[in-house]
Formats: sequence, structure tokens, C-alpha cells
Amino acid sequence: MARARIRDLGISIGYMPTGQHNAITDVPGVLVGHTTVVHDEPRVARTGVTMIIPRDGAIADDRAFAGYHSFNGNGEMTGVLWIEESGMLGSAIGITNTHQVGVVRDALVAQAVEKGHRGWFLPVVAETYDGFLNDIGAFHVTQDHVFQAIASAKSGPVEEGNVGGGTGMTCHEFKGGIGTSSRIAETDTGQYVVGALVQANYGTRRLLRVDGVPVGREIGPEHTPTPWQSSSGQGSIIVIVATNAPLIPAQCKRLAQRATVGLARVGGVGHNGSGDIFLAFATGNHLLSDPNTLHDLKMLPHEQMDSIFEAAAEAVEESILNALTAAETTIGLQGHTAHALPLDELKRVMAKYKPST
Amino acid sequence: MARARIRDLGISIGYMPTGQHNAITDVPGVLVGHTTVVHDEPRVARTGVTMIIPRDGAIADDRAFAGYHSFNGNGEMTGVLWIEESGMLGSAIGITNTHQVGVVRDALVAQAVEKGHRGWFLPVVAETYDGFLNDIGAFHVTQDHVFQAIASAKSGPVEEGNVGGGTGMTCHEFKGGIGTSSRIAETDTGQYVVGALVQANYGTRRLLRVDGVPVGREIGPEHTPTPWQSSSGQGSIIVIVATNAPLIPAQCKRLAQRATVGLARVGGVGHNGSGDIFLAFATGNHLLSDPNTLHDLKMLPHEQMDSIFEAAAEAVEESILNALTAAETTIGLQGHTAHALPLDELKRVMAKYKPST
Amino acid sequence: MARARIRDLGISIGYMPTGQHNAITDVPGVLVGHTTVVHDEPRVARTGVTMIIPRDGAIADDRAFAGYHSFNGNGEMTGVLWIEESGMLGSAIGITNTHQVGVVRDALVAQAVEKGHRGWFLPVVAETYDGFLNDIGAFHVTQDHVFQAIASAKSGPVEEGNVGGGTGMTCHEFKGGIGTSSRIAETDTGQYVVGALVQANYGTRRLLRVDGVPVGREIGPEHTPTPWQSSSGQGSIIVIVATNAPLIPAQCKRLAQRATVGLARVGGVGHNGSGDIFLAFATGNHLLSDPNTLHDLKMLPHEQMDSIFEAAAEAVEESILNALTAAETTIGLQGHTAHALPLDELKRVMAKYKPST
Amino acid sequence: MARARIRDLGISIGYMPTGQHNAITDVPGVLVGHTTVVHDEPRVARTGVTMIIPRDGAIADDRAFAGYHSFNGNGEMTGVLWIEESGMLGSAIGITNTHQVGVVRDALVAQAVEKGHRGWFLPVVAETYDGFLNDIGAFHVTQDHVFQAIASAKSGPVEEGNVGGGTGMTCHEFKGGIGTSSRIAETDTGQYVVGALVQANYGTRRLLRVDGVPVGREIGPEHTPTPWQSSSGQGSIIVIVATNAPLIPAQCKRLAQRATVGLARVGGVGHNGSGDIFLAFATGNHLLSDPNTLHDLKMLPHEQMDSIFEAAAEAVEESILNALTAAETTIGLQGHTAHALPLDELKRVMAKYKPST
Repeated sequence: MARARIRDLGISIGYMPTGQHNAITDVPGVLVGHTTVVHDEPRVARTGVTMIIPRDGAIADDRAFAGYHSFNGNGEMTGVLWIEESGMLGSAIGITNTHQVGVVRDALVAQAVEKGHRGWFLPVVAETYDGFLNDIGAFHVTQDHVFQAIASAKSGPVEEGNVGGGTGMTCHEFKGGIGTSSRIAETDTGQYVVGALVQANYGTRRLLRVDGVPVGREIGPEHTPTPWQSSSGQGSIIVIVATNAPLIPAQCKRLAQRATVGLARVGGVGHNGSGDIFLAFATGNHLLSDPNTLHDLKMLPHEQMDSIFEAAAEAVEESILNALTAAETTIGLQGHTAHALPLDELKRVMAKYKPST
Repeated sequence: MARARIRDLGISIGYMPTGQHNAITDVPGVLVGHTTVVHDEPRVARTGVTMIIPRDGAIADDRAFAGYHSFNGNGEMTGVLWIEESGMLGSAIGITNTHQVGVVRDALVAQAVEKGHRGWFLPVVAETYDGFLNDIGAFHVTQDHVFQAIASAKSGPVEEGNVGGGTGMTCHEFKGGIGTSSRIAETDTGQYVVGALVQANYGTRRLLRVDGVPVGREIGPEHTPTPWQSSSGQGSIIVIVATNAPLIPAQCKRLAQRATVGLARVGGVGHNGSGDIFLAFATGNHLLSDPNTLHDLKMLPHEQMDSIFEAAAEAVEESILNALTAAETTIGLQGHTAHALPLDELKRVMAKYKPST
Repeated sequence: MARARIRDLGISIGYMPTGQHNAITDVPGVLVGHTTVVHDEPRVARTGVTMIIPRDGAIADDRAFAGYHSFNGNGEMTGVLWIEESGMLGSAIGITNTHQVGVVRDALVAQAVEKGHRGWFLPVVAETYDGFLNDIGAFHVTQDHVFQAIASAKSGPVEEGNVGGGTGMTCHEFKGGIGTSSRIAETDTGQYVVGALVQANYGTRRLLRVDGVPVGREIGPEHTPTPWQSSSGQGSIIVIVATNAPLIPAQCKRLAQRATVGLARVGGVGHNGSGDIFLAFATGNHLLSDPNTLHDLKMLPHEQMDSIFEAAAEAVEESILNALTAAETTIGLQGHTAHALPLDELKRVMAKYKPST
Repeated sequence: MARARIRDLGISIGYMPTGQHNAITDVPGVLVGHTTVVHDEPRVARTGVTMIIPRDGAIADDRAFAGYHSFNGNGEMTGVLWIEESGMLGSAIGITNTHQVGVVRDALVAQAVEKGHRGWFLPVVAETYDGFLNDIGAFHVTQDHVFQAIASAKSGPVEEGNVGGGTGMTCHEFKGGIGTSSRIAETDTGQYVVGALVQANYGTRRLLRVDGVPVGREIGPEHTPTPWQSSSGQGSIIVIVATNAPLIPAQCKRLAQRATVGLARVGGVGHNGSGDIFLAFATGNHLLSDPNTLHDLKMLPHEQMDSIFEAAAEAVEESILNALTAAETTIGLQGHTAHALPLDELKRVMAKYKPST
């Protein structure tokens, strides 16, 4: 059965309508680009880098408010100290494998230097660990891979599954990777888009739920082998939430924490080994660089945040499921195999739990 | 149908075994006491205070490690600054209504003074808002109510539902209140008890899930009226997690955050108006006061925390459900009515979603 | 020698000009009121309550942005969870003794109820410990004392020293209490007032510095006895920083942390027993309650914050010194005596360290 | 006049005795190594990397407790999310220039891979900005430079000033760089060493104080030119505090924040552009990797922390001054010049403010 998005399987998540592409790119100005690095020689590569680029690339000069939340900080996201201090995001966001946060981070600096950026620059780069499928000690990702991901970034539909930073990832002991989704949130002061993108590499099989149905319990290792002998909570999930709502930094931080809700619905518990780190940014305000006047801002009243919060929870939940339904079985380092979530089995299980009438 | 605990209805939550009483009191030394204040004259009272008392009352001299997490800080929990700074809990924990955190807090100080405690004292008191059923502006709770709750505190089974601080609370637009549960967690270094107690007063009907089943969608207002005209995310939830594991403060904080997982499984999203504040304490280490030697500590390695985390998530999830299934329909201020979750309907819905074989 | 403000002694702190009254009340709309409770029978009272009231009292409906910082959290400040979550201050701020945070907090709720405030209310009340001079276990402060402090609040000059919440406090082993100061900060986008008010009750004699001069080393116990036998780091300091600059919450939090600088210059190190908790609020933006439109905000660019930061550091430094130079020798509980900083000695020491030319 | 340490100039800071070398290396097992990269062709290099290596290099297997504090987060320190989550330090600590955090971070990963480390690795690398003297866009620092710094790391005296990561730094508008100092703290349960190392690159001339004396005001640009036309708060300071006391993570975090005190005494205010980020680690407990038993820990009671706190404040204060007195005038990129703090002038100013008798 061909890979699909969860919604194409007749499974809908939550209450709220999606944006046009059901992707983080539904937030105007947000681009996504991937470089996927896959080869077997001289050493096995199942890795890559994914770039999320706000403001069509102009984020360094036209900064956005942002906030992060660490649900379980067993991972890296550079740039968080300045985001916490200032509430501002001033760089594109990279996601890659754990060992190569540095090269991606410095590549973003190099690109800024190239473009004539003066002074310091504190880009945001996050990671999850693909060492089960990828020969991570070979340090496959290069500065050029980062530049390619940036160059290829675009709006519209986003590739999911075994792509970019998600190439070698596993999730709930199935093949994981990149997933995305979006929602349209209604508030008293208008409609906003909330999009999410995840690099999903966490979780145990037995806890996986799809719209509340205990799918992980139903698709046992006898049907679809788990990648490890014993069940394991290893791995991580990076979540990026974007919105065009006019939020202030405190609200972005609140929004970032709502990723926990979507993650928990699917079956995440923040295991010790998991780096579950969430970043939210909001493009509704513009923080121009080198300001000599006051910034003019709008702020969605806190009292109107509930639909934004629910949108984030739904978009994250669906993003993870999209990563699972898009990703394909992968054989990697030393023959290690991460099996895709079998879609026919998924449909069978969902039918089994369908309410009687 | 008589009120029950969720497990008595044949609905089991999660994978892990419960402690003896399936209550926070399964953690040795943890006592719970309630004072319930209910009367109609001169002004309507549907309120009270609940006390969670570690170390059989000796917590001021034999402190425990603790940590808190604010999932949505629209509420009060006194004492958190010192818990964050020191990682130590040195007082009993009170939970009451929003307007009366002060009287409960100062009552705990007064009792300490009475007992000869010298120097300052920073007790932990939290709250949720019962102004829908309770005439909260009448300030019904007194210092004596606090002393009574302390005096009545005991180990063993814990009263749930319309009791103590939970008397006037609503949850997912049903009657809410106090709930508790516990789990036995296995680790490589032994077995530990993890218990939870919640004062549940949050959430919207439509998001309520029981073991993944969308119960809130199935029991509409045409069957069981919601307490207010339009759906609302008002309210809050206080969660206390206790364990006898030898954790250090950073681990208590991690554990506190895992309450989010249990809450999200039931349908919490941390709405703007909700004070979702979680405290975890661990009795496995003893921080004696006036120390003139080094403290001797044990620490469960982080690598062994996963079962503790899952236990907390399960215990919180079940505690909320116990609050819902124990609480009884309540008519209060100005005839406002919070209907109990109808257990026969709950059973009907759970049967409807039962998997076919 | 009559008590004075530090500046009246010819000692000027820092570079920046003060506001009109060199007080927190220089920030437009900020009022300060004190109730001082002093009597010897039936039990010794050397205590009180101080209220800082933004927006001429309209803060509940016209909220301000705010942020807090805990330099050493051995103390209480209620309301901080909502300030952290929302970045908004919606209540007057009370400061009192440690044992009576509750009565002051609930009094603010009662007053809000009286005024017709609906829903919950999370006021900010902080404390320091006056149990050396005050019979703190007598719980002298009442709801009426709070109401009196509110009723007496006014703009213009602020009483300092042994007044309000500062009545029974000690600082660097001299008599301490309330102090205030302000600065005018120039930025590229205009001039702003930054004011501070402290309740100073912390510190050891030997670390006290006045404009860098080691005054505490020079005025030994043989000249001015210390209040206790051995030198001690007990005590706390609450700092409130106010400004009319249009800051967002993240900036208020930054500003609050700058209180550490003023405190460190005078000789604070954040001893273990000290509750050094700082709150900053900014009146330059207006967060009206019950909003059905977007809030319109201005934001001082981060790049222009330096003079605001320096102003806060200077104002806090001078506020502490004003508390010391205003406070008068006090004999309290069991004859305990806290001696005032002797101003003639202070002048002598400052002259001794005056640079040669 | 030859460069010196501040103490060699007859200026002593604080009350407490130093360790043997008055350096962070006085903490047993702590090594320091520098690679200094200075050349003019093909592009100007005034940069380098400094490594602080706990446990004589065995830190990955014998982890230490740690905590960090961000006084002003306009900078980068990788690894902080895991330090915050777990309280554990498991890597050596690198400090370099802002643009090259990535290469240093990945070099530490590469070395771990080389040594056979399995799984992920989250090293700690921090930075300050040397772009005034160093052609930072040339990305001079390489993986080999990191390996050299590690290989050269040793106990005993530490080179200060224009060395390692500090090569191109400026401080209070004089030449800055690396400085270190230590103190012996007495507690009721024994004596502990507290050491600090700073990479000092922050501050304005006019705020510089040496033991309270306003040295920066006295040595004006007419005597020693400032590196910039207008006074500027640009730059950053990284502080590493080490101790052999048996602290738990919450205490390390407390200790890290005490660096603010030392910094404020010298004249830091946390300007907007400054990344003032502090890490403290404590070697008194051992967190062995792959544990299958409980960790046995000791904990210095919080009540005995005051001398540790004061030691950290003093050691940080003196470390910064040592950076200033050791650093030598440097001409770099485009002829930019950072003048050393003139020691004869410093002595003159200190004499001028010497108390009369």
C-alpha cells in the first residue's frame, strides 16, 4: 500500500479545519527545505537536514517573536538562551542529527556572513539521534547540505517521512521522520493559521495511539518487528510551531508548551532519553533590526488564545501521525531495519475500534 | 447508579499495577485530610480544604525533595519560589478555593508557630476556582477548617469527588473535585510507589476522553446539561504527585511535568483561564533540619526514571477520572448546577467503542 | 544627627539624574501607602504593610506588563505564576512580614470582590521576616491594616525607613526597612522614568559598601553593635521596579533581574536564608480587561534597553541606601535592638575614602 | 610595566584565602588548556579556544552535577537543556568565538566517537564575540585546534589574558580575555575549593570598579583610548565556576547565579548585547554512567552554602580583574586596537582612593 497522509486514510484528528496544504507552510512566508543524504559507501548514510525558513528568508532583518519549551531536555537546540531573553527569532531553523548540530549551526552563521550580516548571530539548530540507521560517527552532513536545503526551501506541500533531518529517524518503534500539519483557528479578532512541523524519533510501540485508539498495542512485533529487541524509550522529538497570529514572546512560549498535548495524545511521555524540545514563533509582529523608533505591535489578548492552543495541539498530533504514515521501511547501518507503520494494519485496527451504532 | 471509582466500572487505565488503595496514601507516610464546607445559609457554601501531609506530619523537620511545574500558570501555589531554589518541601500542602489561599497559608504558619517552629516558614497552598457553585466572595474557609483537615488526615482510602477543596469544582463540564490513584513502578534498583491526587476543575466537555474514547463528544448537553451556556475552558487543575523513590529535586521537577501527560490524555490542553500547576515530592531522601553534617542521599539514576514517569502519567490520568466518577451532581449558588458524569452513560459509550474481535 | 536620604549626605550614586521625588512614585500613576503597626502591649508589634499601587488604583482593569526574578527564592511572592505565564500585573502589590502574606493577599481579594470584580484574582504579595524585632507569632497585621495602606496611598514623596512593611526590618546588621529612588533614562526614542522601592532586610555588616566604600568594615560592632552575636546572612530583600517605558513582559523580566546589580553593589550576595525576589512592571502599555480587539502595543527595542537597565541598577542601589539612612534605631521583641546606621560615622568613613587630589 | 595578576599589584579582593594557584585548577581534577590562533595572513586571526576539563578528562563516564544561569542570554552555550533537565555535566567545556561554537561542539562529539563513546553526546560550548580584533568571518578555529587545547590541558597555573578563547576579547573597553581565581571556603562540614574561570569580553569603561574604586572613571580615553568611538555595552562574559563540594544540581544553579555578584562588583550590568552566561559544576559527587544501582550522594546542606556563595562571588570578581591585568594591548583586524589596562595607572588610582588614616 502506498504511503499516505493520515487524513488520506480517512482518519481525521481533532475538530479544526486545516490550512490549504495542511502544512507549516500554510503560515504565510514559512518555507521548508530538505537535504536528504542517503548512500551506503564508503559509510552508511541515512541522514540529512531540514530547514524551516520564516519570512521568505528575511528573518534576520525582520525578526519574529518566539518562545521555546523543553518537555524533556535530553537534546540540543542552539539559540534558546537568546530566544528566552529577548523573545525574538532572528534566524532560519535547522534540524539534523545529533552529532552535527555544530556544522549546521556554523553553516547558518557562514551564510549570514556571506550575506553581509554584521555582528554576532545566534541561529537555532536542533537535532534527534539517527545512530540506529545512520553511521552517525561518519559525520555525513556538510555545510553544502545546509546551503542546498536553504536553496530548495519553498512554500506549498512539504515532503514528509524519510526526508531531510528525518531520514534516519524512528518513532514509536516504527519508521519515523518529518511530518507536518496545520489548523485554522478562529478567534474574536479574526482567523489565524497555526502550523507544525516535527522531526519524530521518539517513543515506544505499546503507547502509540491514533485518535485515541491503541494502535501500538494492536500491531505487535510478531506482525511488524520493532527495531530493537526490548522496548525502548530512546529518541527525541523536535517540534516547530508557527503562526501568523500577533503573539508576544510569552504567548509563543505558552504555545510551544502546547506541543506537549499533541505529543501526549499520540503516546509520548517524555522518556529520560528523549530530547523533546519545542519552539513556537509568530509572524504577526515585525521586529525590524537597527530600530530607532519604538516597535509597533499588536497582541492577541490572552483571553483569545484557546483556539490557538487547541490548533497547536491538533497540528502537532497530526504532524507526528503524518511522519509515521509517510515514512517508509528503511534498512541502514549494519542491516538495522526500521519498519514503516503498515497502513493496511492501521486501517484494520481503526476499523476494529470504530464505534458501533 | 451509585458513584464509583473508574476501575470499579471495568475501565482500567494504563499498564501498571496500582498500590494497595490506588491512592496517594499508598506512598508511605502520606496522609490526606479534608474539611468540606457545605451549607445554604446565610450564604451558599460549596467549598473546603484538602491537606496532603507527607512524613506522617513530620515534614518540617524531615524535609523531602520536591519540584513543581506550571503547565498553565493562571493560578496560585504559594511556596514555589523556595521549592525552585532549594528543591525541598518543608510543609504540608493545602488545596482550597482561589479566594482563600491566604487564610489556609497563614493557618499553616500559625500551626507551625504553635508547635514551636522558629524562623520563617513558607507553606505550599494551591487553589482552583469554585465561584460557579460556591459563593466564593463569602470567604467561607477559616483557619479552623484547616486545622480540622489536618487533624482528620489519615492514611488508607481517600474520599474523592465532592470533598475538601474539591467540593465545588467542575471538570470537563461535569461535576469534578478530588481524585487520587497510584502505581507501582519497577526499576532496575527496585520497586517504588507513585501516587497522585488532583483537584480537578478544568476542561471542556467535547475534549473529554476516557482511555482514548471520546466520551465528552458522546454525552452531549442534550443528555447531561453543561453547567454554562457556551462551552468554556475556565477552571484549573492542581496535581500533587508523591513517590517514595529516592529522587533529587531535578527529578521531582521532571516528574511534576509528567502530570501534563495524564492531563492531556483525559483532554486537558491548558486553556488560558486554567491554573494547571503540578507539584511532585519524593520521600526517599531525608533532609533533616539544622544539619551539621552532610546529608546522605540516594539517587535513582535518571536512566531508570521511565517507569516512574509512566507511573505518574497513569496515576494522574486515573485520578482525574476518579474525580469525575466519584463526584455527585451539585446545585449551588443561584441554583447553578454541575451534573455528575452519568456512569451508565459512560459505560454505554465505553461499550460502543469496544473493539470488535 | 537627624535621619536623611543618602543624597542629602552629599553621597550620590551612579551617573543618572533622579526623578522629581527620587522615588518610585515618579513613575506616573504609581502610589505608595504604608500602615505601620507599632505597640508593646499585649504583644510587641514592630511590623506593618506597604502597598505599591500602579495606575492610580485602576490596575485590575488596565493591566500592565510585568516580570519577576528570583535571585534567591527563600521567600514568598504570591501571584508570580500568572505573571510568568501572562506577563501581566493585575493587582496592587503588598509587602509585609513573612507570617502574614496570607491575610494581605486575601484582603486584596476581598477588596476586589467588594469593588465588584468577578472571577478569580491573583494578587501579588511579598514579605521579609521581622521576627527579630516583631513578635511575629502574634500575627498583628489585619485586613483593615491593608485597607488603610491602600486608602493612604499617594503620589509624591514616600516615607522611608521604619514604616509599613519595613517597620521591623534589619539590613546589613543595621536597622533597615523601606527605601526608594528613581532615575530618568534617556533612550533614542525618548526619556523614561525608572523607579524602585525596596523592603530591605538582608545582609551582613562586613559586606556593606556605599558607592564602593567598605562602610561595613569600617563601622564595627564595637562602635555600633550588630543585632545578633555572630554575623549572619539571614533576611531578605523585596525589590519592586516600575517604569513608564513601553516594555513587553520579557523586558520586564530582564529589568527585574537588574535589581541584582544594585543589590550586589551594596553588598548582597544572595545568602541562603535570604528571599531576594524582584518584580518589575512597565506602565507604558495598557492591557484592558475583557478585550474584544487586539491590544495595540509599543515596544522599546531591546537595543535601547541599556539605559533602562542602568537606571534600575542605580535606583535599587540608592533605594537600599535610603532605607539604611532613613531607618531609626529600634528596640523590639525581648529588648532586641537594631541600631541605625550612624550618619556621622558614615560621613566620616566616606571622607576617609575620598580620593586625594 | 610587565603584566601581572591583580593580587601581585597589592590589590586583594574579598575576605577569603585563595587556593594554591589561585585558579580554577585548584579544584582537584580540573584541567585547563588553550589553543591561541594569531596570525595576520591570509586573514587576521586573533582568536582561539579554551577547554576546561573536569575529572582529569574522565567526565563522560564519571559525570558531575552542574547548573547554569543566564544573566543576559545574548549568547550561546550549547548543552544547557540537558544540564537543566538532568543536572549533570558529561563533557569537557569549550569556550571560543561566537561564530565557531559549532566546530568546537562537533569536535568534542568527534573526539567522543573516536574514544568509543556510544549514543548521543551533548557537549557544552560557549562563546563571546571577538569580531573587533579578529576577522571572525574567516572561521579560523578548526577541529584540530580543539584537539590541541584538550591535549595541552593541565592542572596548576593557568595562562591568562590574550590566550585561547580570550585572545581577541575586550573588557570594560580595555583588552580582556581569560582570567581565573579560586577561594577556599570553610563550612561546618569542612573546607572546599571554589574556582572560577572567565572569558571576559563585556562592559563599558566608565563602570569599571576595582575593589570598589571607580577605576574606569579615572582612566579616561584621553589617557588610554577606548576601542570604540562611543562608549558601548557590547560584548559578553562566560563564567565557569567549579567546586569540589558535594552539591546537588539545584545548588550548582544557585552557585552559577552568584557569578552575577562578582560581575556586578566589577561593573557589569548585563547590557542588552552581552551574553552573560554562567555554568557551575561540583565534583563532590560521582554519577557513573550505565548505573544499575542507586547513586550514593552527599549533599552540603543549603544552610552551609553561604561561604560557597561568597567564594564564588570573590573568585569571579578576581578572575575578571586578572583577565584585565594579564591581557596585553592588541592590534587586530583593520588596525583596530584594544589597549591593555595600564597597570601603573591602576596603581596610581588605587593609591589615590586609599583611605586616609
